[in-house]
Amino acid sequence: MSTILITGGTVVSATGRGAADVLIDGERIVAVLEPGSTVLGHDLRGSVDTVIDATGKYVIPGGIDAHTHMELPFGGTAAIDTFETGTIAAAWGGTTSIIDFAVQTAGQKVFDGLGAWHEKAAGNCAIDYGFHQIVGGVDDDSLDALPRLIDEGITSYKMFMAYPGVFYADDAQILRAMQVAAEHGLMTMMHAENGPAIDVLVAQLLAKGKTDPYYHGVARAWQMEEEATHRAIMLANLTGAPLYVVHVSAKQAVEQLAAARDIGQNVFGETCPQYLYLSLEEQLGAVSEKYGAFEGAKWVCSTPLRSRAEGHQDHMWQSLRTNDIQMVSTDHCPFCMKDQKELGLGDFSKIPNGIGSVEHRMDLMYQGVVTGQITLERWVEITSTTPARMFGLYGKKGVIAPGADADVVVYDPNGHTSIGMPVDDEGRPTGRKHHMNMDHAAWEGFEIDGKVDTVISRGSVVIRDDAFHGRAGHGQYLRRGLSQYLV
Amino acid sequence: MSTILITGGTVVSATGRGAADVLIDGERIVAVLEPGSTVLGHDLRGSVDTVIDATGKYVIPGGIDAHTHMELPFGGTAAIDTFETGTIAAAWGGTTSIIDFAVQTAGQKVFDGLGAWHEKAAGNCAIDYGFHQIVGGVDDDSLDALPRLIDEGITSYKMFMAYPGVFYADDAQILRAMQVAAEHGLMTMMHAENGPAIDVLVAQLLAKGKTDPYYHGVARAWQMEEEATHRAIMLANLTGAPLYVVHVSAKQAVEQLAAARDIGQNVFGETCPQYLYLSLEEQLGAVSEKYGAFEGAKWVCSTPLRSRAEGHQDHMWQSLRTNDIQMVSTDHCPFCMKDQKELGLGDFSKIPNGIGSVEHRMDLMYQGVVTGQITLERWVEITSTTPARMFGLYGKKGVIAPGADADVVVYDPNGHTSIGMPVDDEGRPTGRKHHMNMDHAAWEGFEIDGKVDTVISRGSVVIRDDAFHGRAGHGQYLRRGLSQYLV
Amino acid sequence: MSTILITGGTVVSATGRGAADVLIDGERIVAVLEPGSTVLGHDLRGSVDTVIDATGKYVIPGGIDAHTHMELPFGGTAAIDTFETGTIAAAWGGTTSIIDFAVQTAGQKVFDGLGAWHEKAAGNCAIDYGFHQIVGGVDDDSLDALPRLIDEGITSYKMFMAYPGVFYADDAQILRAMQVAAEHGLMTMMHAENGPAIDVLVAQLLAKGKTDPYYHGVARAWQMEEEATHRAIMLANLTGAPLYVVHVSAKQAVEQLAAARDIGQNVFGETCPQYLYLSLEEQLGAVSEKYGAFEGAKWVCSTPLRSRAEGHQDHMWQSLRTNDIQMVSTDHCPFCMKDQKELGLGDFSKIPNGIGSVEHRMDLMYQGVVTGQITLERWVEITSTTPARMFGLYGKKGVIAPGADADVVVYDPNGHTSIGMPVDDEGRPTGRKHHMNMDHAAWEGFEIDGKVDTVISRGSVVIRDDAFHGRAGHGQYLRRGLSQYLV
Amino acid sequence: MSTILITGGTVVSATGRGAADVLIDGERIVAVLEPGSTVLGHDLRGSVDTVIDATGKYVIPGGIDAHTHMELPFGGTAAIDTFETGTIAAAWGGTTSIIDFAVQTAGQKVFDGLGAWHEKAAGNCAIDYGFHQIVGGVDDDSLDALPRLIDEGITSYKMFMAYPGVFYADDAQILRAMQVAAEHGLMTMMHAENGPAIDVLVAQLLAKGKTDPYYHGVARAWQMEEEATHRAIMLANLTGAPLYVVHVSAKQAVEQLAAARDIGQNVFGETCPQYLYLSLEEQLGAVSEKYGAFEGAKWVCSTPLRSRAEGHQDHMWQSLRTNDIQMVSTDHCPFCMKDQKELGLGDFSKIPNGIGSVEHRMDLMYQGVVTGQITLERWVEITSTTPARMFGLYGKKGVIAPGADADVVVYDPNGHTSIGMPVDDEGRPTGRKHHMNMDHAAWEGFEIDGKVDTVISRGSVVIRDDAFHGRAGHGQYLRRGLSQYLV
Ligand SMILES: [Zn+2]
Ligand SMILES: [Zn+2]
Ligand SMILES: [Zn+2]
Ligand SMILES: [Zn+2]
Ligand SMILES: [Zn+2]
Ligand SMILES: [Zn+2]
Ligand SMILES: [Zn+2]
Ligand SMILES: [Zn+2]
Repeated sequence: MSTILITGGTVVSATGRGAADVLIDGERIVAVLEPGSTVLGHDLRGSVDTVIDATGKYVIPGGIDAHTHMELPFGGTAAIDTFETGTIAAAWGGTTSIIDFAVQTAGQKVFDGLGAWHEKAAGNCAIDYGFHQIVGGVDDDSLDALPRLIDEGITSYKMFMAYPGVFYADDAQILRAMQVAAEHGLMTMMHAENGPAIDVLVAQLLAKGKTDPYYHGVARAWQMEEEATHRAIMLANLTGAPLYVVHVSAKQAVEQLAAARDIGQNVFGETCPQYLYLSLEEQLGAVSEKYGAFEGAKWVCSTPLRSRAEGHQDHMWQSLRTNDIQMVSTDHCPFCMKDQKELGLGDFSKIPNGIGSVEHRMDLMYQGVVTGQITLERWVEITSTTPARMFGLYGKKGVIAPGADADVVVYDPNGHTSIGMPVDDEGRPTGRKHHMNMDHAAWEGFEIDGKVDTVISRGSVVIRDDAFHGRAGHGQYLRRGLSQYLV
Repeated sequence: MSTILITGGTVVSATGRGAADVLIDGERIVAVLEPGSTVLGHDLRGSVDTVIDATGKYVIPGGIDAHTHMELPFGGTAAIDTFETGTIAAAWGGTTSIIDFAVQTAGQKVFDGLGAWHEKAAGNCAIDYGFHQIVGGVDDDSLDALPRLIDEGITSYKMFMAYPGVFYADDAQILRAMQVAAEHGLMTMMHAENGPAIDVLVAQLLAKGKTDPYYHGVARAWQMEEEATHRAIMLANLTGAPLYVVHVSAKQAVEQLAAARDIGQNVFGETCPQYLYLSLEEQLGAVSEKYGAFEGAKWVCSTPLRSRAEGHQDHMWQSLRTNDIQMVSTDHCPFCMKDQKELGLGDFSKIPNGIGSVEHRMDLMYQGVVTGQITLERWVEITSTTPARMFGLYGKKGVIAPGADADVVVYDPNGHTSIGMPVDDEGRPTGRKHHMNMDHAAWEGFEIDGKVDTVISRGSVVIRDDAFHGRAGHGQYLRRGLSQYLV
Repeated sequence: MSTILITGGTVVSATGRGAADVLIDGERIVAVLEPGSTVLGHDLRGSVDTVIDATGKYVIPGGIDAHTHMELPFGGTAAIDTFETGTIAAAWGGTTSIIDFAVQTAGQKVFDGLGAWHEKAAGNCAIDYGFHQIVGGVDDDSLDALPRLIDEGITSYKMFMAYPGVFYADDAQILRAMQVAAEHGLMTMMHAENGPAIDVLVAQLLAKGKTDPYYHGVARAWQMEEEATHRAIMLANLTGAPLYVVHVSAKQAVEQLAAARDIGQNVFGETCPQYLYLSLEEQLGAVSEKYGAFEGAKWVCSTPLRSRAEGHQDHMWQSLRTNDIQMVSTDHCPFCMKDQKELGLGDFSKIPNGIGSVEHRMDLMYQGVVTGQITLERWVEITSTTPARMFGLYGKKGVIAPGADADVVVYDPNGHTSIGMPVDDEGRPTGRKHHMNMDHAAWEGFEIDGKVDTVISRGSVVIRDDAFHGRAGHGQYLRRGLSQYLV
Repeated sequence: MSTILITGGTVVSATGRGAADVLIDGERIVAVLEPGSTVLGHDLRGSVDTVIDATGKYVIPGGIDAHTHMELPFGGTAAIDTFETGTIAAAWGGTTSIIDFAVQTAGQKVFDGLGAWHEKAAGNCAIDYGFHQIVGGVDDDSLDALPRLIDEGITSYKMFMAYPGVFYADDAQILRAMQVAAEHGLMTMMHAENGPAIDVLVAQLLAKGKTDPYYHGVARAWQMEEEATHRAIMLANLTGAPLYVVHVSAKQAVEQLAAARDIGQNVFGETCPQYLYLSLEEQLGAVSEKYGAFEGAKWVCSTPLRSRAEGHQDHMWQSLRTNDIQMVSTDHCPFCMKDQKELGLGDFSKIPNGIGSVEHRMDLMYQGVVTGQITLERWVEITSTTPARMFGLYGKKGVIAPGADADVVVYDPNGHTSIGMPVDDEGRPTGRKHHMNMDHAAWEGFEIDGKVDTVISRGSVVIRDDAFHGRAGHGQYLRRGLSQYLV
């Protein structure tokens, strides 16, 4: 095994920062040391295989994206990133762990669903990966399986209050699942939108000829998210189950979370970069020469982008500061415009739901540090430390400390990152593009005042000098423990 | 300088815990290492002067008590602990830093007041100490001095909305001070009780012959704290000044803080062990053979102990979990019953205000871990990490990390601590007593399921094997930076 | 037609009280006059058929009970009061109008359901009666019927979030109905309890052998009411439909209503005497010699009686004062213990839901005036004026004013009313009983410091000198207009 | 004495409306009758002196303006309306009662202050008038006088949290006064702005050369009103005193009131037309050819006009609908620009505070009915019925009922009212002007879709056919009872 010494950098944690050297031996961090690279007179610099000079840079725990959907079948197609392409893209962006969602569909055995996802991922990932379990069919059989997931290192499962006829769980199902979860310590993840009501609105809009992507955002009104969020909180309150609401986008939903948190309930919320930066008006309502009003299809995801006039984006940044939202994931679920998003031409409800962001999360959130929305420490907390604690990875992941996996990112605050796939004057691609499989960039034109310099995954340098040095198959399956974030 | 290796323990931080060895060289931590006491094959155990075996124990950053009043003149007498006795007692209890309050009185130069406190403390402290500055007279001169305190390592100052004629600042004064504080980044600390209104109630109660200590709690009604807390928050809102409310005891005051925090205002609150454990009914209303209803005088402090029937104590624990209260200090301000508290016989308003707790804070809060009120990590956070961040000490204090001062406590979860000064059957002292100067124990009879094992202050072992090995004068003055806790 | 002059009384309205004479000519009030019984020198006293001396008494608009269920089929039996017995009992208690619920079941035509109820009531009522329409099956057909109900004088309809498989409407159905209601101005009434979740809890309790009536209250936890209330509010918010939540019993549900009302949403709540006076512990948990723990069956209703320890009753009185609850109905739905409530021996879920109170509402609420919970004016408002305004009867009902129907109650604050069916020492009935059909008294032992003296229904004296002078068939069907209470 | 019959109109009350005739005999209403002008066959139309045909018009209780300042000395000048001119203007606008403020200054005997106001008003008023008592100096002597005011028909008194050195009461004074008020049932009225803090801001703005009227609004920031409102509420909570906050203008202050009201505290708020219609940006920030930026002086009042961008005006209308604000007064305190407002040229703090609106309140609020902000019934409630109840006049005033004073307004919804003092093309006055003494119109250009048709004051027609038929001296002093609006 090889040894690495990262010297001269500023190690940043969720609580503070300080000059320190980091010593890696094999796959783990073995020491964090005063700068100088010696310990009790022993010179370390000369004893290691590799020295990485991090002078002027931040040394942070590798990013953890706790919400991705590689190769997810959806609406007759599938998310375009494989576990290989998606995890390589993640690595490029400073993310060294993902937690993807294994899917059980109604009628299927939970462990069969899980097995299928293990097959997709095993041997293909460039970084470590874990699974949450989607329970698309809550019944005696799947409830029986829930506690046994813990032995498999899966301590969180997800239900959907949206998508009747697909993943939808009704309140009776949710209640029963939460009872099991509360008893065994599982984290209940919730897609909180009132699906039955939304489906009425969708059908009415389509019947009126409102078929553009923009109406996806109209149909999935904030009331639908607020309501479902409240309902999930109350069922969690009744059962004592910890609750984690995914992809929170409406400020009113945040207020529901905040109210529950104020009384000490174990209720958590994640948001995604799109809800911080993008909007109903600008993106879902975008019109382009190429696609017309269908341009907005690029940003069709659920929950939807919200109205900037209503102030959701500002409120979401605020909630990151107040810790009413605890972490940022991507909900990475990329589709190409061609052949995929295009399925919804003339019917927004047929547009595959999802945006590809796994590569940009660390950068996009760092830009929030630059603009003063969050502190440097909070950046580390919401992208790595809290995800690790929330989902039972802390100690191994989420922290620069001896004993932890050597998942380390050296981030350069003096670097710069231009996101997108620019074209020249004739409209021909210039060659620069992201590493996700999509044929477009949802974050086209975003400029970041910082840059991922070096990425180390379990002791292996995977990104350095603007090149990928990793390999598919390096990534290992993460057996997770119970949440370490409960009050 | 000497070297110490703490081996085999579980290092606990604000975000998690893990097995690690801690290497101290001189006054600082120089490395945190994987257990095993070697680094790249170098044996450390054999190279150090002292090895402390922490097997089965917690290794935590030394406690920081950010609110003490050693030798404070009050009501014709003075707090009975000197900087020497008080800091020795603190060390016994696992606290390795205090922040005491230098006092400027109306008409006095701020730097004269500060100088007097430097004189009291210099050369007398067993652990490190810093100062907040009480500004008892807000005027052009003292406002002019405020920003210059920063160069002296004093980045926080305190005003009083109580005590008209003594320390009282009116709203015009508070507004002006907050404007200065906001401009320069100082933390405004506030004793938030409506003094003018309280004085009316006090006079009325005394006039009606309600002179027992119990009526101290009646006069200082929760409305008086809630109101002043809200007022301070709103003045802070207007000026943009960060605000830290000391000794919060009323649940309604917490709700005011929580509401401001929910909208992202930099508003903070501290509570004290007495507001978590003790009550109006049980302590202020206590009757003893020796003192009768004056027994309650032992617990006269302001803000007062609150009614348990009204649920303040439970709410205060909850607010520690929700982070609506961020930290726990003691407001250590000890007075003997004899000659001191007795000044208020027949007139509760003349009882010197204060309780002595500096020795017991770490233990009392650890008991909250045992009873499930807070997590182990939260214990470290509220007693050390957040105090350090709040008051600009983080990095040097509040964390087990290379470069930090070697302020380390080894805490034994299998030990036991009995608090108090027990007497034998004939009422004669048994010899066991705390190390504070008081003639009684405010925490008599409290049993803690844990024990301070070893205390290291800036690299020196000061408590070990139930003995004090430190010395007055070891403690150094702490120059603090600006708060590291702002959103 | 006959003329009546009520002299010497204090006329009480929702806004105030004053000495005034009331002149009735035929079925209507034709004048309200200064005391003295003359107008411009014309003597009225000598010109009328009847003079009622109301000296020392209150003259108020007749009570309107906007929530009754005469002859309602439920769980294999039917509410034991017919429209005849129920309305006679109502008259005895000072109630001169009821609004009962016509029922449409799933698959049935709305107008067929309504027709059936018209048949039950027509010619049988002693006082005037109107209908709300229960829509037990929301579909294209019933939605189409909704606006046409307005022409029938039915301007409010009710859905159930409880009782899956019976009356239950899911969120898609509720949304669609509210859209129609918002467009046409109908009031949406809601039974707000999360039925699917409750049914899980019921089944689990029964499976554990928890079969006593007490567990009815456990299964229908406050979270189930709070949640459904919030959901209904949010769907109303989305659609713009006015919302009226029936039989609110949980303080947390009130808080949801209050929050919506604070932002100006047209959201209303009704409570019932049982939620103000009775409790989970005392009534649902009652044990008697005769029935053992099944005694509690007398008070099985939904929403259930709530825990007094949790403070719901006090909060409900408060909400009557704050107008967060606007009115008090009875949800009168009486069942005998014998043969009816007994259906649920060994299975609380089979106990017919309901309590009989139509006779006692005015008295029970007046007792709230006596005890200082509400003012005299508020008594009139919550029992008559607001019900009239809420459901489009004001002008004709709910007010003492010229042009209004002569529905007048003379109430004697110096009288006394003992409620119940007392037995002598040998357990034999003493003969005194209420006028409802039940074989027991849900309000046994309640003593009221006031008494219904005289009741006039549309100009006919129906109660006087402790005797019923009315007749079945006197009561007419009330065609109601749209709500007059919207902001 | 003369008799009047008002026929054919729609009588509107706070709870509803209906066709009815109103019979007046002398100074009082003696009957309200079914339309047709007969009672038991007696023809009334032929028996009365005057018949007023109100066909197609609203018949409402005369307006009560509970907050006026005739002849108030302020800043070296005095409000320009005398009791004569002011009450005549009021009558023109459909207001038949005012409650003005008698002033006690510090050191003065309360009854001396009151006496002076009686002298100003007696014999000079065209409509009835009452007094609140300003207590500008709270001390033993004035507190002793407070309860004795009740015998004088003064049941409300006002304190100021603003204006240090003038009317200012500190918290100790407020607490003591509220204790007395709570004991005796007096209503405490509060000018709720934090005066000491505002004075700091004023001085700083002036020192920076910010002398224009606009900065009056900047200095009196919403935080200053919110804070004082909360403080007053909390002192009221402590003492049990009912509280009425005058001239509420900030939405955040309303939220404080709403929160207190939600828990059943007797807390009330009044707003004024200026806070519903006018704004910081448009009026205080106005620039004219004649006055430049000093144009804004016309609208300098305290609390100040608020920012429309912050949404205060919309929120204030909402609070009228939600009853979180209960009534609308004018705070009529008119000053001419010439010689009066001009005192503040170059120093906004010297501009006399006040706007003249007493003539326009009924019209301006009716326009809210036209635009759908409030209902017709709510218009009557907030302008007459609630003021009467709030201040102990109900029965005599505030209602169309037998026994009430014959203060009646016939309002024509088909009429039109143009407010202002228009000039012709050469800038010469056209002759049309309001009846207040001011040399300008604060409401210039406001158009009202309705018109005061006829005004009757205690049985005398004072406004009819666009002419004033009343006389100074007709108005009588109103002895008021305790508030009839408490919960
Ligand atoms: Zn997802
Ligand atoms: Zn203090
Ligand atoms: Zn919060
Ligand atoms: Zn202190
Ligand atoms: Zn019902
Ligand atoms: Zn004022
Ligand atoms: Zn409210
Ligand atoms: Zn005023």
